[in-house]
Amino acid sequence: MKQIPFYHTRIEGGFWGEKQKTSREVTVDAVYDRFKETKRFEAMKCDREQHEREGWKPHIFWDSDAAKWIEGAAYALEYEKNEEFEDKIDGLVDMMCNSQLENGYYNAYYNVYDTDKRFTVRDHHELYCLGHLIEAAVAYYHATKKDKLLGLVERYVDLVIKLFVEEKTAGFVTPGHEEIELALVRLYRLTGKRKYLELSEFFINSRGNNETDNFCRCDWMTERYPQDHLPVREQTTAEGHSVRAMYLYMAMADLALECNDEALFGACDKILHNVAEKRMYITGGIGSSHIGEAFTVDYDLKNEHAYTETCATLALSLFCQRMSAIRPLGLYADVAEQAMYNGSISGVSIKGDEFFYENPLTIDLSNHDKNTATKDKERYPITQRVRVFDCSCCPPNILRYVNSIGNFLYTEDNGTLYVHHYMNSSTEFEDKKISQTTLYPSCGKVRLTVNGNYRKIAVRVPSWCKKFDASAPYSMENGYAYFDATEVIDLDFNISPRFVVSSPSVHENAGKTALMLGPVVYCIEGVDNEGDIFSLSVNTDTVFEVKQDSFFGLPVIAADGCAKVDSGSLYSDIDSVKYEPRKINFIPYYAMENRGETDMLVWIPVKN
Amino acid sequence: MKQIPFYHTRIEGGFWGEKQKTSREVTVDAVYDRFKETKRFEAMKCDREQHEREGWKPHIFWDSDAAKWIEGAAYALEYEKNEEFEDKIDGLVDMMCNSQLENGYYNAYYNVYDTDKRFTVRDHHELYCLGHLIEAAVAYYHATKKDKLLGLVERYVDLVIKLFVEEKTAGFVTPGHEEIELALVRLYRLTGKRKYLELSEFFINSRGNNETDNFCRCDWMTERYPQDHLPVREQTTAEGHSVRAMYLYMAMADLALECNDEALFGACDKILHNVAEKRMYITGGIGSSHIGEAFTVDYDLKNEHAYTETCATLALSLFCQRMSAIRPLGLYADVAEQAMYNGSISGVSIKGDEFFYENPLTIDLSNHDKNTATKDKERYPITQRVRVFDCSCCPPNILRYVNSIGNFLYTEDNGTLYVHHYMNSSTEFEDKKISQTTLYPSCGKVRLTVNGNYRKIAVRVPSWCKKFDASAPYSMENGYAYFDATEVIDLDFNISPRFVVSSPSVHENAGKTALMLGPVVYCIEGVDNEGDIFSLSVNTDTVFEVKQDSFFGLPVIAADGCAKVDSGSLYSDIDSVKYEPRKINFIPYYAMENRGETDMLVWIPVKN
Repeated sequence: MKQIPFYHTRIEGGFWGEKQKTSREVTVDAVYDRFKETKRFEAMKCDREQHEREGWKPHIFWDSDAAKWIEGAAYALEYEKNEEFEDKIDGLVDMMCNSQLENGYYNAYYNVYDTDKRFTVRDHHELYCLGHLIEAAVAYYHATKKDKLLGLVERYVDLVIKLFVEEKTAGFVTPGHEEIELALVRLYRLTGKRKYLELSEFFINSRGNNETDNFCRCDWMTERYPQDHLPVREQTTAEGHSVRAMYLYMAMADLALECNDEALFGACDKILHNVAEKRMYITGGIGSSHIGEAFTVDYDLKNEHAYTETCATLALSLFCQRMSAIRPLGLYADVAEQAMYNGSISGVSIKGDEFFYENPLTIDLSNHDKNTATKDKERYPITQRVRVFDCSCCPPNILRYVNSIGNFLYTEDNGTLYVHHYMNSSTEFEDKKISQTTLYPSCGKVRLTVNGNYRKIAVRVPSWCKKFDASAPYSMENGYAYFDATEVIDLDFNISPRFVVSSPSVHENAGKTALMLGPVVYCIEGVDNEGDIFSLSVNTDTVFEVKQDSFFGLPVIAADGCAKVDSGSLYSDIDSVKYEPRKINFIPYYAMENRGETDMLVWIPVKN
Repeated sequence: MKQIPFYHTRIEGGFWGEKQKTSREVTVDAVYDRFKETKRFEAMKCDREQHEREGWKPHIFWDSDAAKWIEGAAYALEYEKNEEFEDKIDGLVDMMCNSQLENGYYNAYYNVYDTDKRFTVRDHHELYCLGHLIEAAVAYYHATKKDKLLGLVERYVDLVIKLFVEEKTAGFVTPGHEEIELALVRLYRLTGKRKYLELSEFFINSRGNNETDNFCRCDWMTERYPQDHLPVREQTTAEGHSVRAMYLYMAMADLALECNDEALFGACDKILHNVAEKRMYITGGIGSSHIGEAFTVDYDLKNEHAYTETCATLALSLFCQRMSAIRPLGLYADVAEQAMYNGSISGVSIKGDEFFYENPLTIDLSNHDKNTATKDKERYPITQRVRVFDCSCCPPNILRYVNSIGNFLYTEDNGTLYVHHYMNSSTEFEDKKISQTTLYPSCGKVRLTVNGNYRKIAVRVPSWCKKFDASAPYSMENGYAYFDATEVIDLDFNISPRFVVSSPSVHENAGKTALMLGPVVYCIEGVDNEGDIFSLSVNTDTVFEVKQDSFFGLPVIAADGCAKVDSGSLYSDIDSVKYEPRKINFIPYYAMENRGETDMLVWIPVKN
């Protein structure tokens, strides 16, 4: 099975076309400017005198911020040449290369500080940073053929091989934060050098062998935090720090494909089922708890305190995308889609320059700062996106994600073209041309045009789709409709609003429903609904009013419901309660909190 | 208006008769034994050598534990003589008196440690402990006429007057934890000495004058924590540490009565309305947050994390009882009753020897210890009562509360007898005899027999009572039915189960209902309901099955409802959800968690 990389595809118009346009025109610069202001780029110079003169100090993970920005900007370059972006990237690469040590080492913190502690603290992100530098180097090389950064990372990886594999003189065996494992597979794919694949395998195969004692901060972490609890092939549930977990699973899937490793694939499949069936918010959000930014237990999906880091959710979809590239099971792409349209893209403002790290499913402003007796406050997610974070991993992650979203579209295998997702787009590679004309997910109709030497065309029919129409005969298998190859196929997934409920095991959602339109989760906001949105309940037999909305990029929806009238009593007999009929106005969840601070709610009580 | 003290009343049989019997026969000893084991009583000897030899040290508030046990046991003595109780009390009083300093000072910690720091740290509970010693002395003197402890506290109070009022040489003006203010009113009432009343007034009138800077731990507390935010007569909302707040309001009400202080009464009335209308759980529980054990903001009434300390809830009812003794407004006794039958008495096990400090309205065991990635855990209330706490204020508070519950029954004023509460009981004082024959609150019928020189008899008709029948004509005023005095009046409050809902401003209870029987809140427990109780919803048009239950002392109730069937999917279309009809079995909330650890829920989704 072979993935068709995003750079063969132009996505124009439609949902993702607009998102990419904003990302190229606004987000690239917005992230760059904030990182420049906060000295993240200056730090790459490794100039201690400058730090002291200006009174700042690099953080141990700033290399990854710079690298992810480079990677995101490089993806934008695949769409169109941009000299300003290239100049900025070249400047950064020069800083890095000028500071790379003789032996290949490079880290903006450890080049300058604690130089005797390099590779001694497992959780100090040196290999994580290198992983992102590799991804940036691969991306920038592909976009421009400039290989300076690639040279840096290859020299650096050689040092890592020497210290970790050959001499075994590093202070730990596997990195505290996974990332380099998947990056090494990319480097292998670009260069064809097996040593990179072997280093990735070394890290993956070494994980889960009781290395936790070697972990910094081990006084409060458990072995699950860095997925150390079991050898990776024996893992069956998503555990620990959710971003680390997903980066591990992505690498496992990559290796499963490259090495044809059924045991690795099997573990990935079990873990993904665990996520999809028990540990994922309806938004595709994962990692319920801010304590350890972590997965907790099955069905623990609290809405207001949902941590659901943007990076984790988008990484979940990237993990799914890798799984789809191994085996075309509808579940994989279904989960990817749920994460793509909801808890990933909610991480960036519609304007493209502000970001959420956490993506809660309820924002109840009345709960914030409520303890008047002490200065201690209960912790809640922030309620408005911000321009940059102290730990600002999410903004450049969203940047590289949106600009490479085309990676999700297609794989091909043995004469079959797999169409996993739907975006208005045209794809050209080798002698093949594929295009989709669609307003998906505003509308369920897709015209698929395929000119290529395929025998079969398999299109995913999302599990939420209850009525699938196609212009040609097909047979269904594992969530995909298989057609004999033909130039044009018209598909219709018949997207219309529907109410969804949770498993009874999600206790907080008892008696509540959420509105979806295709893969898109909706929410209600105070700004669109008079009075207190927490007094509202919906009639599930409503006739929906669906209206296109250019600000949100997808329709807004109105449904019938009612508001509980406040009698003024704190408690009253149920017979005395009055309800006022109300139109309840929904917007797409990803667009929440784009119009000032306001209450927001996904799961709404049902009133029949 | 004059309160008829509990010691004129024998409560036999019925709900409170049983509770008092258990309290006398089990709780007195249970609390005594635990306090003895934990050295709380030995500490009263103030023998530093013993501490060092045995390796323990008294806490700054252990005097109050000893005092509250004495007070509770003294109340049991009013019911019947018990030489063992008296011997134990006398032993404790001897220890204390032997350790009292020349100048009158006595504190089991500061007698021995930090002797130069007496009365320097506002939050170190010396005056709080003295307050409880006063209450114990008054109670024990009344029960036995033994005045040794009374002598101790009178000498000690004289020292306090000297240091705080005359010389003003203490390190602070008002105590960090209120209690002495209300105790001094009791001491005044017993002795007739105005200096005690005046000292109480001094403390009350001095509060709210920017003394917070003088408060220990002021780095995390605000001025609301010890009710310092405004002069007391200007306070309108219940603020800060909920037990401190209630003890303050009790004293304010006492002084309002003694001094005919309308401004104080007005503040109390406003505060009580704020509590009843915006800050009280349906169980009468108050103080939502464990952060500062405090009131937060209006309508912040989270169920699972409800702090609702037993002491706070029972103090709320005692505050109400004082308010009823000033002005007979139904609201006051209604709130008292809601606290009495629910969040107060839930603090003790049915057996009488185990205690809750916190009284949550939801226990969802699946949420506990759910973070597998770190050793940090989210905080939840404990799920089973324990025999003693490190800070064990609640157990002896429940003891003195239950054994003096008769205080709630009657006040008289200008020829009118006010009947505020209903308990099977007989009361004799002066030449008067009053009795109630009733199974209240299992049944709403009460036969009231009054032989006394009254012109009117006013009986409270609880606000939850929708149909009130009486054997004689009456007129209603402020929640009381006024009858011309007659020997026998038959009352019927027609108690039957009813569903109650919250104000829409209590966001967590949207779409949910609670079951009540008269003043008693019900809950469902896992042990009585097959499967997951969080999958259940109730039909509000159910026919109730009400069955007497001797274990709980009140009926158990079954209602029709249904269970959401688990389809195995985390999310599914609402049309595909199946519900199974179920009998839902309710027990009284106060009896929760008496049969092993089990899920518990008060607010249940409504399914029509």
